[in-house]
Amino acid sequence: MNELAIGVDLGGTKIHLAAIDRSGQTVVESIVPTEAKQGAAAVLNKMVNGIADILSRLKDVRREGDVVGIGIGSAGQIDFSSGTVAFAVDTLPGWTGTPIRDKVTERFGLPVYVDNDVNVIAIAEKNFGAARPYNSFVCIALGTGVGGAIVEEGRLVRGAFGGAGELGHISVDFNGPRCSCGNHGCIELYASGTGIARVAAEMINANGWQPEWQADSREVIAAWNSGDPHASEVMAKVISALSTHISSVIHTLNPEAVIIGGGVSEAGPAFFEALREETGRRTGAAMWKATTLLPAEIGSGAGVIGAAAQIWHYGTNTINHG
Amino acid sequence: MNELAIGVDLGGTKIHLAAIDRSGQTVVESIVPTEAKQGAAAVLNKMVNGIADILSRLKDVRREGDVVGIGIGSAGQIDFSSGTVAFAVDTLPGWTGTPIRDKVTERFGLPVYVDNDVNVIAIAEKNFGAARPYNSFVCIALGTGVGGAIVEEGRLVRGAFGGAGELGHISVDFNGPRCSCGNHGCIELYASGTGIARVAAEMINANGWQPEWQADSREVIAAWNSGDPHASEVMAKVISALSTHISSVIHTLNPEAVIIGGGVSEAGPAFFEALREETGRRTGAAMWKATTLLPAEIGSGAGVIGAAAQIWHYGTNTINHG
Repeated sequence: MNELAIGVDLGGTKIHLAAIDRSGQTVVESIVPTEAKQGAAAVLNKMVNGIADILSRLKDVRREGDVVGIGIGSAGQIDFSSGTVAFAVDTLPGWTGTPIRDKVTERFGLPVYVDNDVNVIAIAEKNFGAARPYNSFVCIALGTGVGGAIVEEGRLVRGAFGGAGELGHISVDFNGPRCSCGNHGCIELYASGTGIARVAAEMINANGWQPEWQADSREVIAAWNSGDPHASEVMAKVISALSTHISSVIHTLNPEAVIIGGGVSEAGPAFFEALREETGRRTGAAMWKATTLLPAEIGSGAGVIGAAAQIWHYGTNTINHG
Repeated sequence: MNELAIGVDLGGTKIHLAAIDRSGQTVVESIVPTEAKQGAAAVLNKMVNGIADILSRLKDVRREGDVVGIGIGSAGQIDFSSGTVAFAVDTLPGWTGTPIRDKVTERFGLPVYVDNDVNVIAIAEKNFGAARPYNSFVCIALGTGVGGAIVEEGRLVRGAFGGAGELGHISVDFNGPRCSCGNHGCIELYASGTGIARVAAEMINANGWQPEWQADSREVIAAWNSGDPHASEVMAKVISALSTHISSVIHTLNPEAVIIGGGVSEAGPAFFEALREETGRRTGAAMWKATTLLPAEIGSGAGVIGAAAQIWHYGTNTINHG
């Protein structure tokens, strides 16, 4: 099987493109700046040019004929059935409503799938990573924000228009600080990179601490791992909030596995140990016994690999799908 | 279509049995006490005798031949594929592990489906009630406790062993009071009948109120509906917690509808009005626009009707299913 799929991971800062083979290996890749401020038409154009560039580089090695489809993972809420953007935040101005699939299909005449960036990470983990043994699982991505994806009996749960899985906007404190989504106390305010920094700044301020570290998630995690007592108080609050959130997700979905990825999840084994211990305490016994909490296996390339893997996950025998 | 299905709604206090026709109408019915303390074998025996009694009463009107199957909704976490009890709380001692489907199939030689009591309410609402127009929806039952059911693209979301949909154990306060499930601040502690009573007692105690009503959910709701200021403070907290919870559920599942049933949902139109207003404020705009929050249509009979309706929902062409 020499088949290749082109994957595109479109974020607010950069567009990551690659040709991926059936084992998940990258054959050629490129990263270009999104320059999102130029607007949706310009971003779409950049993406199309990026795909053309990958195809041209494959031509140089006589493999352009092996490409069987294009998979795209985009920031925002994506309507999978039409391949359009249902809703995008301000990091991609004007992106809402963009008919990504139609535009890319028109240009290249290949099967195209478009989904949101965390759903395709779940596909990467299912096909090549930590989720391989599981049919019903949840991915939680602890990055700048908190994203999520839900797989039930092998199928991504999408809901009314593809917005399902916004696990970062499950609240853990109905009296907590207001979130951009309108709710209060969303887990994103506690356990994302920016959330950890926020909790740290709040606790430094409230307690008059003068720590040797800044209120930055990397610095807090490093100080915690080296035994700093104030950083430990910060991380105790973060882990308490995140354990509660994961417990709520387990009670909602009874998943076989909860897979935690994103920059924050690279905090090290002590982080997972503490998370498992407190989540276990906060979760009903039968549900906890039935689930496994484990780190994502595929690192920063999961977006582009999962985007491409949609081609084999859903099949290549149709261009008009949905 | 003269087809009938026998429905069984098994709770900790009573067993509700009925023969239901394809339009959801009850032909004959009975209610017997569960007497759960006598143990699982005795409860199972009571259920089987109750089914035999319904069949005998149908014989009197020459309709026993119309019965095409038996559907059971049981308290606890049910493994739908095997029709056994995965986990039951202390209201049904010894119920965990009971092979309900095999026992009932063995005795009556009819197709039998067993699911948990809230999943079958979702089937009742889908087939005969408020959920008829929707393929992806959530049911939240605000009763003595808080139960839930999730339907995605017409299918009940079950998870690893059928425990999915325990929406009562989504936390809204990670520093809140400890719940029986192990988590802290579960919505069941705020918005169930016992939860409203708990919040009322806590606020009476903290504020030194001397209200004319008791810390009981029915009394609190009645006092609130008649404009009592202290009851209004209690209900403001309840509605704030419940709106947060519903918003978290919407962000997780992007449902077309959220259907609220159970005794507390009968608090009246002001309750739904307040709930819609605050949930709207706490939910992302695209998600809120795509969803409808509405009361369940089928009242106290939803359990037995939905239990029976499983027969037509899943089909009668097999005894061994799953």
